[in-house]
Amino acid sequence: MYQIVIVCSSDFSEAGPEGAVLEREVVALARRHGIRIIGPNTMGVFGAKTNFHGIIVTIGPLYGSTSMFSQSGNFGVQMMMRGIEEGLGFNKFVSSGNEGDLNCIDYLRYFGDDKSSRTIVGYLEGVDAGSEFLAVAKKISREKPVIILKSGRTESGIRAATSHTGAIAGSLDSYEAAFRQSGIIQVSTIQEIVDCAKVFSEFPLPKGKRVAILTRGGGWGVMTADFCHESGLEVPLLPDKIIKKINKILPRYWSRGNPVDMVGITEFEPFLECLEIMACWDGADAIIALAGMTGSWWKFDEKEELLERARIDRDILAKVEAAAEEQEGRTSALARQLITETGKPILFVDVAFREAQLRSIQELRAISYSEPERAVGALKRMVDYKSYLDSL
Amino acid sequence: MYQIVIVCSSDFSEAGPEGAVLEREVVALARRHGIRIIGPNTMGVFGAKTNFHGIIVTIGPLYGSTSMFSQSGNFGVQMMMRGIEEGLGFNKFVSSGNEGDLNCIDYLRYFGDDKSSRTIVGYLEGVDAGSEFLAVAKKISREKPVIILKSGRTESGIRAATSHTGAIAGSLDSYEAAFRQSGIIQVSTIQEIVDCAKVFSEFPLPKGKRVAILTRGGGWGVMTADFCHESGLEVPLLPDKIIKKINKILPRYWSRGNPVDMVGITEFEPFLECLEIMACWDGADAIIALAGMTGSWWKFDEKEELLERARIDRDILAKVEAAAEEQEGRTSALARQLITETGKPILFVDVAFREAQLRSIQELRAISYSEPERAVGALKRMVDYKSYLDSL
Repeated sequence: MYQIVIVCSSDFSEAGPEGAVLEREVVALARRHGIRIIGPNTMGVFGAKTNFHGIIVTIGPLYGSTSMFSQSGNFGVQMMMRGIEEGLGFNKFVSSGNEGDLNCIDYLRYFGDDKSSRTIVGYLEGVDAGSEFLAVAKKISREKPVIILKSGRTESGIRAATSHTGAIAGSLDSYEAAFRQSGIIQVSTIQEIVDCAKVFSEFPLPKGKRVAILTRGGGWGVMTADFCHESGLEVPLLPDKIIKKINKILPRYWSRGNPVDMVGITEFEPFLECLEIMACWDGADAIIALAGMTGSWWKFDEKEELLERARIDRDILAKVEAAAEEQEGRTSALARQLITETGKPILFVDVAFREAQLRSIQELRAISYSEPERAVGALKRMVDYKSYLDSL
Repeated sequence: MYQIVIVCSSDFSEAGPEGAVLEREVVALARRHGIRIIGPNTMGVFGAKTNFHGIIVTIGPLYGSTSMFSQSGNFGVQMMMRGIEEGLGFNKFVSSGNEGDLNCIDYLRYFGDDKSSRTIVGYLEGVDAGSEFLAVAKKISREKPVIILKSGRTESGIRAATSHTGAIAGSLDSYEAAFRQSGIIQVSTIQEIVDCAKVFSEFPLPKGKRVAILTRGGGWGVMTADFCHESGLEVPLLPDKIIKKINKILPRYWSRGNPVDMVGITEFEPFLECLEIMACWDGADAIIALAGMTGSWWKFDEKEELLERARIDRDILAKVEAAAEEQEGRTSALARQLITETGKPILFVDVAFREAQLRSIQELRAISYSEPERAVGALKRMVDYKSYLDSL
């Protein structure tokens, strides 16, 4: 056990040679007293288990099973803020700052050993001991997902990174293959981090890349089929046995294909029945269900004026909301049951209703995305990770 | 002037040969009485000017200057819902349904002639009269932006589209070049539609592709520089004259590069001063400012429990919020002024605080995105569109 001091002050190595000297002195002094340093130039540390909020800005993240280290404090803090809006909870967070003493390899190793950290996220600009980082990541990624956003990928980015953390960013060419070989899940946007972290912590990995799509709107189905195809996932044709089953549920003019389009019917039961058929279909490894969580979006005061304008009948609206809430509950309960029984992930997509998505994740333990491409992107990462694990 | 009937019922041509016969009969009958048909199989029509909500679901979109036609009703409706969360207002909307009579070319032409429609958005699966559509689009795109999401781009998507609208979707190969030559702004995700529509309606087009980046967090700057570089935008080096100006504002250890990193200083004035310097720099055509709108996110009741956990001092929080609100107001006022004076777009990025973004757009008339890649993507579309217009 060490004593640890968090040094938030800046004007150390990131500021030039003088600062670098000072930084080395501080670290050496600390070492002589058995103290380790987080930082300097860090935004701090957060821990859900101990309710420790050692961060220099006022934030209160959701608690969850994702742990994150970040070579940008601002990035890390904003990610935790964003998590509140996206239903992504954090277990531990450290802003690594200048890494004068403890560095991101230490944090990666720590999260790797930590039972309550089920998914690891890292924001990286550069690592001095690249091969050590990769070796540690390779060991950990066998046990739990390691999602890394590597910044400083281009000439412009590298220039910015060099002046930011002083690290030598290195071109992505040398990183990409090495990351892949270490089982690291590579993302390049904030959105992708959120999308992957949400689902990796909660759901089983799909056994293959065949996707069954169920949709309440034809257009969404087309878009999702495109995204799947473009990202290398398969949208297999429906076999006769599945078509026959669905014939009994949907109107005669249904699509008879994958995506299964609910062709605008307003009844709710057929959606659940089709969801079960699709999940149990042995030709599919994962399910994307579009517009399953319809949400109770209208409840917000801010929307009062819009309701007024649209002359929406409040009684009808109250009924729509109550029905939506009941349907969400039943949909996610069924989804949880099907995920457990079949071992296949079921991802929902609901374009509007961000608040409803949050509710669905926190209360109902369903995973919902605001765009089909986000669900497809996260699913692709799961498929790739599974394929990596299978190759070991 | 025609009389128009909106036919929402389905089970027409999308359901097979029998339905197609019925559809032709309905259209022929209407024609004999001087009536035009929207649909059948449409979700309806919305018009802000007349406050007309002829849509079969309960929605009340924001009012704005974007008009949209959609070959998926569900898609269109969800886009308007989504607009509420993203600050995107609509002027007119039509779900084109089966296009038994009026079709998306009619709607495109209509929006082209309509003065209150400043940006046109279309969701397209397939067009029978492709060359006519392109000719109309080419004419209109000289005057106002035409943003199209073309679905049915892959084998899987085309299969789904064929069963959805019955249209022959065609491969993207044949569309992409034709779209480009017609000045159509092509997008492939819902997010991109929102991102582009927001900014095209409000801001002048940049004269070139050189981007000045101002950031309150180093990591965001690195990411944004990467995204710019990867998308073909330039992040030019700062000339001495600009460095000298900023030397007077920021601490001696500032980055001296583009992105200009505020290096964690908490004072607010320097941010505005740097924003002005960057906007007036003749080496930049557009400005991306990161974490300028800090937002008053904490006000929501839902966050009460999180505040409790994090033991955040309410008095301090109230001060932070009040300061943030004042700063947002001043930032957007300055941005509006600089946009007018310099003719350059200024895009903000604020990763959390979705509600604050909405406020900034609706009340303060600033454009803010929740991720740097979204701002970069929208800016790239503006640069490309400007370059197309210049080539005419």
